[in-house]
Amino acid sequence: MPSRSDPAEAITAAVAAIASADAAAAAEARARQDRLTKPPGALGRLEELAVRIAGMRGCARPRLDQRLVVVAAADHGVAARGVSAYPPEVTAQMVANFIAGGAAINVLADHAGARVRVVDAGVLSTPDAAPGLVRLDLPRGSGDITRGPAMSRETAERAIAAGVALVENERRAPGLDIVGCGEMGIGNSTAAAALIAAACGRPAAAVTGRGSGVEGPAFEAKVAAVEAALAANRPDREDGVALLAALGGHEIGVLAGVYLGAAAARIPAVMDGLISGAAALVAVAIAPGVRDYIVASHRSPEPGHGAVLETLEAEPLLDLGMRLGEGSGAALGISLCVAACRVLDEMATFGEAGVSDAGPQ
Amino acid sequence: MPSRSDPAEAITAAVAAIASADAAAAAEARARQDRLTKPPGALGRLEELAVRIAGMRGCARPRLDQRLVVVAAADHGVAARGVSAYPPEVTAQMVANFIAGGAAINVLADHAGARVRVVDAGVLSTPDAAPGLVRLDLPRGSGDITRGPAMSRETAERAIAAGVALVENERRAPGLDIVGCGEMGIGNSTAAAALIAAACGRPAAAVTGRGSGVEGPAFEAKVAAVEAALAANRPDREDGVALLAALGGHEIGVLAGVYLGAAAARIPAVMDGLISGAAALVAVAIAPGVRDYIVASHRSPEPGHGAVLETLEAEPLLDLGMRLGEGSGAALGISLCVAACRVLDEMATFGEAGVSDAGPQ
Repeated sequence: MPSRSDPAEAITAAVAAIASADAAAAAEARARQDRLTKPPGALGRLEELAVRIAGMRGCARPRLDQRLVVVAAADHGVAARGVSAYPPEVTAQMVANFIAGGAAINVLADHAGARVRVVDAGVLSTPDAAPGLVRLDLPRGSGDITRGPAMSRETAERAIAAGVALVENERRAPGLDIVGCGEMGIGNSTAAAALIAAACGRPAAAVTGRGSGVEGPAFEAKVAAVEAALAANRPDREDGVALLAALGGHEIGVLAGVYLGAAAARIPAVMDGLISGAAALVAVAIAPGVRDYIVASHRSPEPGHGAVLETLEAEPLLDLGMRLGEGSGAALGISLCVAACRVLDEMATFGEAGVSDAGPQ
Repeated sequence: MPSRSDPAEAITAAVAAIASADAAAAAEARARQDRLTKPPGALGRLEELAVRIAGMRGCARPRLDQRLVVVAAADHGVAARGVSAYPPEVTAQMVANFIAGGAAINVLADHAGARVRVVDAGVLSTPDAAPGLVRLDLPRGSGDITRGPAMSRETAERAIAAGVALVENERRAPGLDIVGCGEMGIGNSTAAAALIAAACGRPAAAVTGRGSGVEGPAFEAKVAAVEAALAANRPDREDGVALLAALGGHEIGVLAGVYLGAAAARIPAVMDGLISGAAALVAVAIAPGVRDYIVASHRSPEPGHGAVLETLEAEPLLDLGMRLGEGSGAALGISLCVAACRVLDEMATFGEAGVSDAGPQ
């Protein structure tokens, strides 16, 4: 799948490249699990996870050596509505923190043996160029969704295509076996809640949470902003690009492209929390086959995240009350995927180890 | 705490050395969590976990560099009652597999950056000496608990003291910051179920599970064996050594000693599944203060493990349907403890990173 200069064409090419999981590789992995020196099924969901990844990769003993967490950042017009506990300049400040290595995702990605790519997908105060920072030519901040669309359809396509291209570039060099989807953007839990409400057909109050920690009047303002966004924008929920353009956030678009690009390249894409979940809904609306390549890392206490998990019919690996974003839960999820695949690949079989298998009962 | 030649004296010394968690270190860690570049509490249970470990270690920014998984193995007289899906010789075969590096715990401990010490605590067919294998002078296999006690009180004390000494030796060289408790022993889920039933005052049927995968008549035989063991042995549930001697298993005694030794040395002890949980109950019966140093890594589908978690009032970190033992869940738990402590230690504060803290709402 070569890079395309036309964003819509690049998206179409990625969608066309998405194939179902490889049932033969998964079956071979399943059969191997049952020959390894443990009672069949004794490693529980770790076994299922490795079998699923075998199907994604088309390989019965997949290795996940090249690991990446994408942290896409952008600002949001809706932040002016007082929906966050933090001022908008924190988006750019946190991008600088990611680049300097001081954020939670830097620590947790390193713990998982994953590199971090920070994507400036439209931060108001553009950060300086730095190693590990990918700067995209996108508008600086989205429109105020309480009054109109977040972005044009063309901008939405450009954001998604940038995510697709990022995966493709990383896959070529230095290589890519698994990718986690993280984000940063003051106001983006409001955009994500609105997008999830529209995509899942839920009322604003059912999907709006505390985000970075809003309470009292700020929380009321946030619910009102989601309601206003849904009144001002009525996208076709079957049209992923329209959902993104209406309620988006550029970083949500980039992550939707990461999911699409990962699925096209048979690479597991590890979902994080609320915003990463909204991006997954956009990607699945564009290409339902993406779902086969999504691993839900954790359950966020955000109510909108529950709606995402239900819609994707995904059971997350972890439930630790994490609600930071940045890909923090995805990094822990990557570590579990690596553990699961290493068990499948590295354990001895009963025959190799000279261990007696279960006898007749 | 020097090593003692008298086992009872060594246990008494360990119990005397157990102090409460350091509230000042925990409070300092909590205050630091709130200065790190994330909304307060946004990393959920990962934050609480690091704060708890800070209290255990008596250090506001604990590092968990030296990690160990103890895999204690022993045979069980009750295995002759047809309670397992595997023949008794599998205990020795799996010890050889641990030494060769082919078992799940080898892979998962390596994934967590932990070394493995395999302890022969009474395997019928004694394995050859090998690097990483600790051989204890204990009887080869426990007595049939359906007919009488598993071991003498003196043997129980020797097993526990061996666990205490193991932690002390590892702490001196190469050093020890966290320890996971794993085991192997055909028949030991029957012993553990009986011990848990006695310690928690539960009926046999409520705590007996499928173990390595017993079904039908073998499962009925297992429940009957637990009932018979409870009829044949009526230990005082407040007396941890008596519980172990009655229903034990030498590997359960060694792990009980590991919990005691870890608590005495302010080292977090990561509990695994059913058998590791039974050992935790023995240790807590001997010294209630041990509970402060136990981290519950995961929830096993074994019903007896639920009784352990309730009794310890512990909420496990993971719930992945794992039921292997060996310390497999503990290894994943160690990895989460490391991640939690690295976040606490390595993240930048708002001040260091020049990020605006939450404004007044």
